[in-house]
Amino acid sequence: MILELINGPEDIKKLTGKELDILRQEIRDFLIGKISRTGGHLASNLGVVELTMAIYLVFDLPKDKIIWDVGHQSYTHKILSGRKGEFDDLRQYGGMSGFPKRKESPCDAFDTGHSSTSISAGLGLAQARDVSGQDHFVVSVIGDGALTGGMAYEALNNAARMKKNFIIILNDNNMSISENVGGMSRYLNGIRTGDGYLDLKKYVTNILSRIPVIGDELIDKISRTKNGIKQLLIPGMLFENMGITYLGPVDGHDVKALARALKEAKKLDHAVLVHVITKKGKGYEPAEKNPSRFHGVEPFDVLTGESKKEKKNPSYTDVFSKTICQLAEKDPKITAVTAAMPDGTGLKRFSRLYPERFFDVGIAEEHAVTSAAGMAAGGLKPVVAVYSSFLQRGFDQILHDVCIQNLPVVFAVDRAGLVGSDGETHQGIFDLSFLSAIPNMSIFAPKNLWELKAGLEFAVSFGGPFAIRYPRGEAYRGLKEFNAPVEYGRGEMLYEEKDIALLAVGSMVSTGEHVREKLKSEGWSCTLANGRFVKPFDEELVDRLAKNHWLIVTMEENVLQGGYGLMVTRYIHEHYPHVKVMNIAIPDGYVEHGNVSLLRKGLGIDSDSVIWRMKKEYLDTERQNMEWKTINTEEKKA
Amino acid sequence: MILELINGPEDIKKLTGKELDILRQEIRDFLIGKISRTGGHLASNLGVVELTMAIYLVFDLPKDKIIWDVGHQSYTHKILSGRKGEFDDLRQYGGMSGFPKRKESPCDAFDTGHSSTSISAGLGLAQARDVSGQDHFVVSVIGDGALTGGMAYEALNNAARMKKNFIIILNDNNMSISENVGGMSRYLNGIRTGDGYLDLKKYVTNILSRIPVIGDELIDKISRTKNGIKQLLIPGMLFENMGITYLGPVDGHDVKALARALKEAKKLDHAVLVHVITKKGKGYEPAEKNPSRFHGVEPFDVLTGESKKEKKNPSYTDVFSKTICQLAEKDPKITAVTAAMPDGTGLKRFSRLYPERFFDVGIAEEHAVTSAAGMAAGGLKPVVAVYSSFLQRGFDQILHDVCIQNLPVVFAVDRAGLVGSDGETHQGIFDLSFLSAIPNMSIFAPKNLWELKAGLEFAVSFGGPFAIRYPRGEAYRGLKEFNAPVEYGRGEMLYEEKDIALLAVGSMVSTGEHVREKLKSEGWSCTLANGRFVKPFDEELVDRLAKNHWLIVTMEENVLQGGYGLMVTRYIHEHYPHVKVMNIAIPDGYVEHGNVSLLRKGLGIDSDSVIWRMKKEYLDTERQNMEWKTINTEEKKA
Repeated sequence: MILELINGPEDIKKLTGKELDILRQEIRDFLIGKISRTGGHLASNLGVVELTMAIYLVFDLPKDKIIWDVGHQSYTHKILSGRKGEFDDLRQYGGMSGFPKRKESPCDAFDTGHSSTSISAGLGLAQARDVSGQDHFVVSVIGDGALTGGMAYEALNNAARMKKNFIIILNDNNMSISENVGGMSRYLNGIRTGDGYLDLKKYVTNILSRIPVIGDELIDKISRTKNGIKQLLIPGMLFENMGITYLGPVDGHDVKALARALKEAKKLDHAVLVHVITKKGKGYEPAEKNPSRFHGVEPFDVLTGESKKEKKNPSYTDVFSKTICQLAEKDPKITAVTAAMPDGTGLKRFSRLYPERFFDVGIAEEHAVTSAAGMAAGGLKPVVAVYSSFLQRGFDQILHDVCIQNLPVVFAVDRAGLVGSDGETHQGIFDLSFLSAIPNMSIFAPKNLWELKAGLEFAVSFGGPFAIRYPRGEAYRGLKEFNAPVEYGRGEMLYEEKDIALLAVGSMVSTGEHVREKLKSEGWSCTLANGRFVKPFDEELVDRLAKNHWLIVTMEENVLQGGYGLMVTRYIHEHYPHVKVMNIAIPDGYVEHGNVSLLRKGLGIDSDSVIWRMKKEYLDTERQNMEWKTINTEEKKA
Repeated sequence: MILELINGPEDIKKLTGKELDILRQEIRDFLIGKISRTGGHLASNLGVVELTMAIYLVFDLPKDKIIWDVGHQSYTHKILSGRKGEFDDLRQYGGMSGFPKRKESPCDAFDTGHSSTSISAGLGLAQARDVSGQDHFVVSVIGDGALTGGMAYEALNNAARMKKNFIIILNDNNMSISENVGGMSRYLNGIRTGDGYLDLKKYVTNILSRIPVIGDELIDKISRTKNGIKQLLIPGMLFENMGITYLGPVDGHDVKALARALKEAKKLDHAVLVHVITKKGKGYEPAEKNPSRFHGVEPFDVLTGESKKEKKNPSYTDVFSKTICQLAEKDPKITAVTAAMPDGTGLKRFSRLYPERFFDVGIAEEHAVTSAAGMAAGGLKPVVAVYSSFLQRGFDQILHDVCIQNLPVVFAVDRAGLVGSDGETHQGIFDLSFLSAIPNMSIFAPKNLWELKAGLEFAVSFGGPFAIRYPRGEAYRGLKEFNAPVEYGRGEMLYEEKDIALLAVGSMVSTGEHVREKLKSEGWSCTLANGRFVKPFDEELVDRLAKNHWLIVTMEENVLQGGYGLMVTRYIHEHYPHVKVMNIAIPDGYVEHGNVSLLRKGLGIDSDSVIWRMKKEYLDTERQNMEWKTINTEEKKA
């Protein structure tokens, strides 16, 4: 095994060409073997084995800084930097992250997770190098999918001003998580396939016919020559036009060619883009054939590629997927917008049924939100389906383009709450806070499958900005008997008793159900209410609770600050100062990767922890008081 | 006066060529006359007089939809659509907005304010048109400055997929508010000046020498030909490469040429970009000479161009400007980052003193934040100076790129709180909420000039993410005697008494001072404390207040939801349920344009309103109780 020789960043440099060739196969086998057991990102990692090897051959880590855009393709990098022993715990609670982490290795120069940040971060590192008079290379590795994100372009625009070396590697596999979209994608495709190089003569004629004259003589000429010109004629001219030297395209599975290109790139005294063509899933047939399905995988059978997990009950995403199609059938004004995640958000089905009403905008959350605002201003009812943590990038657009004009855009906020193994960058634990701060925004959190359906129906006919947030994974199928019609700003009383009241939203309603059962079994009287609307929250429901309970426990899968509990607490303090309040929420901090139920336990928001905390802070004292009262009363009687 | 004939969008079409020529001069005179009295955006509006006229000649408003990026250049549009009578109240409380507002006129197709949204909004409107089977034109008018913003590029990338007409007008004046930066700017400059068209022969040779072969033979050839290729050879090739037809460049002050170009653009069945060259400030010499100073102006003398307002005391921006330079002199690790606002943020001075440590990234808040994170990861101490409302666009980057890694980036959040005449889109009233929700973030709000200085000194040596927020306008010079050294997470007791406590942050400390004086004069005992740190807030200070006061009034110039007051209220409810709390904050809603003191009154956060509310809700009852008690006691005594 050559792989056994690799224990640190310099080790690969000692290998012969033949050994390198064996190594790349061993790495692939290693990745397939490990990921088939732990789950993780597969296709993207198989695509960059040779590219990563070439980077390690040409650069000196950790002195040189490599920034991996998104970062889920950094597994080979983790192997080559000396972390192959940690793959058994990949993405597990306490184990190695699936993304680069500075705290994990000095070879991880910058943490990533969300798309399109690497050129900005790399530029910052290069600027730090130059300001401090240091001497090393900075390399940002970005996919063509990430290049659809606006901040990558902001960074390219700034990279053009660099007066020292700065290397951008464009890892072009013609994919985001799903297939790639837009003008840039078509452009890169032109380079990849060699289209457009051919008709040079015609091209030159076109140029000559277009020599510009400021003024109107020009117009006629130009409008007629468009066809020949749209395709790219010189590879990378677009980047060159922006002021960035273009090298490539280079075969991304030829280590030698890659190394030569990178060595060439090192010689330049400004920003250079090395265009590398890779194949997502390379070397594992099921993944090559279906890279989208092998983007992020559960444990699977290596031979067949089949997932090892049994078929599960429908997820919230499935429910959304089906419901939005049903609603769209009845209402031709409903459109759907996704930012490069038709599969993940469940909009694939919609895209097939209503292709003319479906808009996949690429990894471009800002544009997704504002174009939806435009659609709404134009009389449509757009539904923007996006993961909670990615919606963070549309914050200003929601606030500025949707909500000031009070436009009827529905946000289907998937993966809200804890997401598990993707970790810190992907937890959807801030949306209640950032959305609540925005005027004119309404927020709905369903407790189960049926409530998501009902909420969505309500949302598309509501007439203003409306967010529905629901968690990753299986839709809760309990509490089916509670299906009060959705009324604006109204919650739902589930089990009404007295003394203690649980007031939960979204996924925490089922947690509340468990808490209540346990407390009941211990003799407590306990109410459970479903908040449903986080904004506006149901004051009448809180009134009702406050009148018959001495303790109200708010429960949400979101950080405390800015969330549901604080608004409720303020209301209670103003009107019912004697009622005690306990806020169950995620503490002020980031949440690492790991199994969701372990994470919930660690954060103190699973039912056992909630009960433990309730007892420790309130119930034990109360019971003592009660017992003391009882004894006292009995003594008095006696 | 031709202008008198213009009372609605169709009226301009009735004019002769000669009359049009007179009209453009009359519009300029009108704008200069009005803005010199009311203040407002001047230079950008003078630049688009002819362009707006051409748009009105070629399109039918309100049927056709025009979206003005940023929107501060929409004054001629407001005149031509029939609003010239409202210019006397421009940007005044209750008067006409300085930006497009759908509620103001059917000719305003989409509200704007922040940069780079128009192509996204326009695409959404065009998609709505196509989905609904309507038939009209959609035109997005975007400046070259706004084109440095990433979401404009996300939208261009999507515009390339349009199969029906969609028109983008690039209003190219080589300026953001200040001069423009980056590769795209250089590119457009190449078109503007005609550079690069000339050496066609050399260009073709270059092309031929670069016919690509996938693999490594290519590299050597390419790396040597870079110089000749960087400049643009065909105007607009970059846009054509992205899949958008390019028309231009067109003289932006030639109504006829503009109209012809726009008519040509209407014929296409896909996205087209019309490149228009304009001059900011056109037709008013002082503004042509100094467009940056005449971007947004106070009332001025038309003859001299001099501002009519007397010299004022230093603003918070001035204090920041001076302090950051002093700190940078001592510490070579300090760098400064601005997003196209070196003047507005006060970094001009820094840029002159430390050009190699100054980074103006263009209108690109996302890149500004993440590149600063990169700098911090590289060992520097970057200070990102940005307006509060624009920082909203960096929310995900602060959360994801700065704070997860706990990197020492300082955010100098200028224009925090109410900003006045720019209105809804520019009020900085959300930053305490969205920043507070982010783990690892610290937030400091100085009460006066000296505290900003001290806070900034503290911030650059703090070692983690740190935001200092301060308002627009004159720095408060009161309370100078209170200058306790800055300690992390600690507030400052100013006047300690008992009964009522005011706990204020930032600009509200001086409001609290007034409130206290008034209450004192009426016989109340009143404490005033300066919170200083919004996050983490000073629990000890709250303990101290809660022990000796029956009412605590929190005061902040931020929306209630997610802000300072709620965290304090929760703490008080948990530990001191008997203490009453009143939260003075901005109610959940957007705040229109107008004079800041009028706005504060309208929102109930000026000292008179605060006193009125305190009396109504608490003090009147309390006084009655006290009086009743006194009477009672006296009666008993008697």
